[in-house]
Amino acid sequence: MDIKWICNVCGFRDPMYKHYHWSCPICGSPLDIEYKPVYEYGSKGLDRFRGLLPLTPLKFIGEGETKTVVEKLDGTEIMFKLEYMNPSGSFKDRGTTLALSYAYTMGFNEAVEDSSGNTGISVALYSRVYKLRSKIVVPATTSREKKCLIKMLGAELIEVPTRGDASNYVLSLASKAFYVAHTWSPFYIYGASSISFEIYEDYGEPDVVILPVGSGGLLLGVMKGFEILNSLGKILKIPRPIAVEGYSIQPVFKTVKGYEEKGEDSSLAEGIMVPNPPRLNEIKNYIDRYGGDIILVGNSEIIKALEELLELGFVVEPTSATVYAAFKKYKDKLKGLKVLMVLTGSGLKICKEYRVS
Amino acid sequence: MDIKWICNVCGFRDPMYKHYHWSCPICGSPLDIEYKPVYEYGSKGLDRFRGLLPLTPLKFIGEGETKTVVEKLDGTEIMFKLEYMNPSGSFKDRGTTLALSYAYTMGFNEAVEDSSGNTGISVALYSRVYKLRSKIVVPATTSREKKCLIKMLGAELIEVPTRGDASNYVLSLASKAFYVAHTWSPFYIYGASSISFEIYEDYGEPDVVILPVGSGGLLLGVMKGFEILNSLGKILKIPRPIAVEGYSIQPVFKTVKGYEEKGEDSSLAEGIMVPNPPRLNEIKNYIDRYGGDIILVGNSEIIKALEELLELGFVVEPTSATVYAAFKKYKDKLKGLKVLMVLTGSGLKICKEYRVS
Repeated sequence: MDIKWICNVCGFRDPMYKHYHWSCPICGSPLDIEYKPVYEYGSKGLDRFRGLLPLTPLKFIGEGETKTVVEKLDGTEIMFKLEYMNPSGSFKDRGTTLALSYAYTMGFNEAVEDSSGNTGISVALYSRVYKLRSKIVVPATTSREKKCLIKMLGAELIEVPTRGDASNYVLSLASKAFYVAHTWSPFYIYGASSISFEIYEDYGEPDVVILPVGSGGLLLGVMKGFEILNSLGKILKIPRPIAVEGYSIQPVFKTVKGYEEKGEDSSLAEGIMVPNPPRLNEIKNYIDRYGGDIILVGNSEIIKALEELLELGFVVEPTSATVYAAFKKYKDKLKGLKVLMVLTGSGLKICKEYRVS
Repeated sequence: MDIKWICNVCGFRDPMYKHYHWSCPICGSPLDIEYKPVYEYGSKGLDRFRGLLPLTPLKFIGEGETKTVVEKLDGTEIMFKLEYMNPSGSFKDRGTTLALSYAYTMGFNEAVEDSSGNTGISVALYSRVYKLRSKIVVPATTSREKKCLIKMLGAELIEVPTRGDASNYVLSLASKAFYVAHTWSPFYIYGASSISFEIYEDYGEPDVVILPVGSGGLLLGVMKGFEILNSLGKILKIPRPIAVEGYSIQPVFKTVKGYEEKGEDSSLAEGIMVPNPPRLNEIKNYIDRYGGDIILVGNSEIIKALEELLELGFVVEPTSATVYAAFKKYKDKLKGLKVLMVLTGSGLKICKEYRVS
């Protein structure tokens, strides 16, 4: 298969198995991958959709093919996709297995990443599996439990004072190692698109998808997945995307609506506190093109959503609960529709007792 | 369907939906359930094997139908069954959903349990789902993280000085509530037998199963599952069970072999530190009847096994790693065979860095 890195901004193209780029070497934009999707099956995990993805992972450790629980709530049929039941406890494993499978094929022997959250944990695990050394750079504010997990999985943990220092430090390592760059990488987008393939095969296409948006890889991936299915004639319409951000950090809201909205602190949703998503325009384009929307939520709504999700049996982290909080605010507009809600990260990894104050 | 509690020791029988018994009211032995298994399918989770189980859960939150990763190691084909990817992070969820579904049907409004480990966490979660209040009684030595998870999931946590105090205290609560009694309960045995049904459908029967043994519910369930398949003519032979205990506490080893074996401390394998399993004779009978064996392991072997399992991509707790440690000691006798290894509990719940000293 002929697979290329392409830059949709300046037109740069390069065969994917020639050089590794984590951003466009000409104009600095995020890259996409050019390939021809075909409906062809492999076996397990992401390989099940072998022909629909630009590459398939070399190894399978249990990622993908997550369960879906369907519940009728407030007149809406909700498909809860349990992505927190992936090997390292989050949907990031779908992207990480593609990224590190590629790194392995390209002959890298070290992976580096700046992430104090689910991606750091996922990269630590898959580096081990793909026999790469790994260095995860985190700000000093990272919780003890997350640092412990990253080290337990075998990565070298490098602590620096701030989030900005982490980004700078990892770039200094990137010349000699595979820089995973998950907020930029198309691997995380195609990884997430496999969620759409699974939902389509098991339940058909939803009318609406509700997704938390930090750097946007999940939303871009899920939408791209449905676009691929549409381009192959498998589905006739693309679901409307409802993006969810917290009041504290709202770049997508501001870009889509043209203003900011005041509200309570949303710092519990750590995973979506991303002030400058590299693909902000692509996110806006999807929302505009398919009649989507963007909802803001705050801590007290998140805590209430966590409690209600527990009653349904879903043990997720606060960032994942934002989608259910958004559904509660938006539900009058969703009656009679089929809604996909992706529950992204496990609540078992870091225990806190959240209380509505 | 006509379903009865039965006591295989004194012959006591009682319709299952008449009274709840957690042990024989006549002679105090552990009870079994009498029913007629038929090969009949339902839909998801444990309901998939509706006709093979004495009851099916009323709700589905993602338990069961766990993934299997097949690896050829040292000339043996190993089926790793990833039970740690259940909703609360352990295979106990299979038993808990049966037990609390039954409690709900019987009209109980509170569940009580003495467990500081995976069962306590599982009972806290499913109590929430089945709308029962729950009280989990734990000894003061229970780790901060486990206590936090039990409370986060919504159970009332009751701390008492010792493990013995916990058992006594929970009995004082049992007259007014559903006492889960997982070390006695046949629900946890039939829950575990669904593992065998899944393995049979997806891969056929293994030659050998390697399982950690604490109170023995997993071993009894997996073996009973294969016996049921055999009784229905689906499989011709029953796999040989290899039980695994730690050197520190070895009731099964002593009962099967007639002596104790000295070795290093095995306290990392908390989940199998059970000095008096209520069904010790049943465990011995399975090992004797099907040409099984019992292996002892210690902390340094467990830590090494944890590291090697991580390289395969499996993030498990030390108790789960005992089976791989046992395989390494026993592998010369397993060449050319198909071996099922059940990986029971998640390593994401409580982070520790284990180091070989």
